[in-house]
Amino acid sequence: MLGAMQDWPLRLERLIDHAAREHGPREIVTRWADGSIERTNWAGIHRDARRLAQALTALGIAQGDRVATLAANHARHLVSWFGTIGAGAVIHTINPRLFDEQIVYIANHAQDRVLFYDHAYAEIVERLKPRFDTIEHFICFNPPAGDGGFEALIAPHDGRYIWPEGDERAPAMLCYTSGTTGNPKGVLYEHRSQMLHSFIQATPDMFALAARSAVLPVTPMFHAGAWGLPFAAAMTGAKMVLSISNEPAILHRLIIDEQVTHSCGVPVIWLTMLQHVEREGGDFGRLSNITCGGSAAPRAMIAAYMDRGIHFTHLWGMTEMSPVGTVAALPADWDELDREAKLDLLTKQGFSAFGVELRIIDDEDRVLPRDGVTSGRLQTRGAWVIARYFRADSDAIDSENWFDTGDIAVIHPDGALQLTDRAKDVIKSGGEWISSVELENAAIACPCVAEAAAIGVFHPKWDERPLLLCVAKPGIEPSADRVREVLSSRVAKWWLPDEILFVDELPHTGTGKLLKTELRERYRDHKLPGV
Amino acid sequence: MLGAMQDWPLRLERLIDHAAREHGPREIVTRWADGSIERTNWAGIHRDARRLAQALTALGIAQGDRVATLAANHARHLVSWFGTIGAGAVIHTINPRLFDEQIVYIANHAQDRVLFYDHAYAEIVERLKPRFDTIEHFICFNPPAGDGGFEALIAPHDGRYIWPEGDERAPAMLCYTSGTTGNPKGVLYEHRSQMLHSFIQATPDMFALAARSAVLPVTPMFHAGAWGLPFAAAMTGAKMVLSISNEPAILHRLIIDEQVTHSCGVPVIWLTMLQHVEREGGDFGRLSNITCGGSAAPRAMIAAYMDRGIHFTHLWGMTEMSPVGTVAALPADWDELDREAKLDLLTKQGFSAFGVELRIIDDEDRVLPRDGVTSGRLQTRGAWVIARYFRADSDAIDSENWFDTGDIAVIHPDGALQLTDRAKDVIKSGGEWISSVELENAAIACPCVAEAAAIGVFHPKWDERPLLLCVAKPGIEPSADRVREVLSSRVAKWWLPDEILFVDELPHTGTGKLLKTELRERYRDHKLPGV
Repeated sequence: MLGAMQDWPLRLERLIDHAAREHGPREIVTRWADGSIERTNWAGIHRDARRLAQALTALGIAQGDRVATLAANHARHLVSWFGTIGAGAVIHTINPRLFDEQIVYIANHAQDRVLFYDHAYAEIVERLKPRFDTIEHFICFNPPAGDGGFEALIAPHDGRYIWPEGDERAPAMLCYTSGTTGNPKGVLYEHRSQMLHSFIQATPDMFALAARSAVLPVTPMFHAGAWGLPFAAAMTGAKMVLSISNEPAILHRLIIDEQVTHSCGVPVIWLTMLQHVEREGGDFGRLSNITCGGSAAPRAMIAAYMDRGIHFTHLWGMTEMSPVGTVAALPADWDELDREAKLDLLTKQGFSAFGVELRIIDDEDRVLPRDGVTSGRLQTRGAWVIARYFRADSDAIDSENWFDTGDIAVIHPDGALQLTDRAKDVIKSGGEWISSVELENAAIACPCVAEAAAIGVFHPKWDERPLLLCVAKPGIEPSADRVREVLSSRVAKWWLPDEILFVDELPHTGTGKLLKTELRERYRDHKLPGV
Repeated sequence: MLGAMQDWPLRLERLIDHAAREHGPREIVTRWADGSIERTNWAGIHRDARRLAQALTALGIAQGDRVATLAANHARHLVSWFGTIGAGAVIHTINPRLFDEQIVYIANHAQDRVLFYDHAYAEIVERLKPRFDTIEHFICFNPPAGDGGFEALIAPHDGRYIWPEGDERAPAMLCYTSGTTGNPKGVLYEHRSQMLHSFIQATPDMFALAARSAVLPVTPMFHAGAWGLPFAAAMTGAKMVLSISNEPAILHRLIIDEQVTHSCGVPVIWLTMLQHVEREGGDFGRLSNITCGGSAAPRAMIAAYMDRGIHFTHLWGMTEMSPVGTVAALPADWDELDREAKLDLLTKQGFSAFGVELRIIDDEDRVLPRDGVTSGRLQTRGAWVIARYFRADSDAIDSENWFDTGDIAVIHPDGALQLTDRAKDVIKSGGEWISSVELENAAIACPCVAEAAAIGVFHPKWDERPLLLCVAKPGIEPSADRVREVLSSRVAKWWLPDEILFVDELPHTGTGKLLKTELRERYRDHKLPGV
């Protein structure tokens, strides 16, 4: 026996239909690179999305075909999402900051048929065009005046378009995640998975989105779909503010002028923003919620925002999770906590959203307790978690749907998640784990250290012991002893590196992360003192 | 091509699993009729729900079987929901305030196999037992000490129970809606429909539920599932406060003692609560959100709560809508509105949740404009809207899924819904509609009127004209002329009743609504003056 409620497929075109019908005049603001402000609204996005769907149909784009973008955050990029998805095709956002090799690999692997790109990335497109195997149409979002492009593409169309029906499990969006080894891997979001993600994203303990919110995602639309915010904003009828630039002065101006209430981005954005406001004076206007992810935010910065009455919270997620996993929501006893206890909580990665499960396991796949002490490999499963990478031959999950995140974490008795390291970076000494991230964070607290990397190096007795590589701050005499002294006050004695070396520079990936694979390779045969 | 995210059926047992895992210690408080307070938590509800599932299995209850309750709001009632639903059966909440005939009809039509009931309703159960055709087990939630009942039923079981898998479209809950004519009709909620309802219910523009919320649903659990709140509370990990009594002094005490943040109920609850607090002094503690539905709340009362800093908002819905359709959420320009404009907005029924569509049509089924003036029959469709009544032979919706709500409404250009009447009560005069509700509201503004009912009576020229029936307030001389004078200042001239009569009393339904069918019957051959 089935129930007797209506059929209502969870299809994403319903979001833009709803936004246009119930929140049509709510603005979508774009600040272009030249400082000009362009305004449209949900009704305008809806109309242009349908015009684009007509244009894509005229180009022969069929259901399931991939339409790529190489673009920053702006309203036309938003139109390209809803138009492509509404037409039944798949929007594929490519990160323009990747190396050429990766962009070429991704576009060819995805078998993209169309590429929409920003004029700012025209050089990349020209350079790589001969190497793209499947792209038939290259369309510039913002060509120099009178030069065709996106607006010319949709100009002949009137928007009288009925979205095709489709399965709610059909793909809607494709995002590649690039690790430090191997080829990038594609995550194929579904209409259904992204819709469920949006539902939970709007709730008070996640992003707390309402019709009166004005959302400025600093997170690029090519990073896991700006963390899903364009969908959740359409669902709730929130205003959107989109900026090409990430300059703190420019973002701050937008926050004030456009009465932004919600924003999100990586810690460095919020650090430079805070420094800007502290230097220039002023406040944050109506900004009430900042969601910060990508890496851990410093405690002092969280405190500074908290003291200004802003709800600053950590998000943890992954491209493979659409991407939201946890948010450091306020617990029931928040009002009773003292300042330090509040900060303890906000520096953790937060609590599972409904729809996402977490667990930690040891090297023998035994489930570990949520005791706030034991650390293990973090696994997840849930309504918007990957099952299989795009065009892969086998699942990315085990038989019970658990996906290995590659993170090392502790789960506290209250359910709060605390990441301690990446699994491939953790240093395994005598069967115990030493967090490379915590060693590095402790090291950069030393005045003479600009950047630090901790890696495990072979040790005949302990399997691995830590080697700490530091880049000295200019103008300060580097001293390994002083670093050791600082570390001694911050980490357990057995965590102290067997050796601390100063180097000229450390290697990084295209997105600015430490390239530890290269360091481990470089120091593979390094002899630690006393070995 | 399908996407590549995980299978994750939208099954309601996931809610209680999540609540227990992530918010296990969050309290569920029951205030019994004798004033005693009983405390459990989400972990306890989870454990007892699984014990009940074991007990139901032992009784031979199979997937899809109906398990009825005749009970007020308390933790055992909550356990019976999650235990029954988790076991794959259907929880069927019966309204104990209905007439005997209706209760018997409903239980037999639903083919209930088990009935859980409160001791307070033992007399009803004893009286009707011989007439229940299918109920095999009668189990009292709170029998006088040592008398078996619910706790004895689950006592032998250890809670080591794995929820059975099932279809997300499987039924989970059955609620009957009793109109003023015909037999009650059953609405069979699905796991999926109720889950989607919970997602949207938690969002800031609906009930705004978070882990730090403490929810006191004054709405009975037998009224469209306490408006769905037990599910949304489990989803968000909110505390629940349940009270047998609806006495304002008792509810107010609970609001203060249990630090209630969210509550909901019909207008009369909030009116008497306000009078209580104004009389006794004091405040509302942490209460921040009141959601009011069932009928229109008076503007002055909304203002009084608004002035106390409480977000008091209208909800409109129906049992056929699980039940939430619209909530008077704050629009984007809220902060710019003056006091009267804010109240104008809060007295309307609010905006469509994502997932629900509204339209108004005329008698020829033409769609009418959202102009804030034109009124028409209100129709709805969406993710948690009925398709077909339980055991009915045909759908309750048209070929495009539109369900006729039986309400007459205006939709404003901003999307705000304003109900003006029930379709069967509207007075059709010369092709135009006169709202019986507005006439009645205007009439009770007259000092001599305690209650009023406006009905349409046959008129040879205009088809129908209004007849207003009033019950006089004790101690004040009733005067039809004075009533007419008051009405003249409040409604259009052509709306003025052709006749105003004072009567001793007006007929009501079992749930206290005016029984206009009986009035119309009684005055069917009434001759209006001048006819």
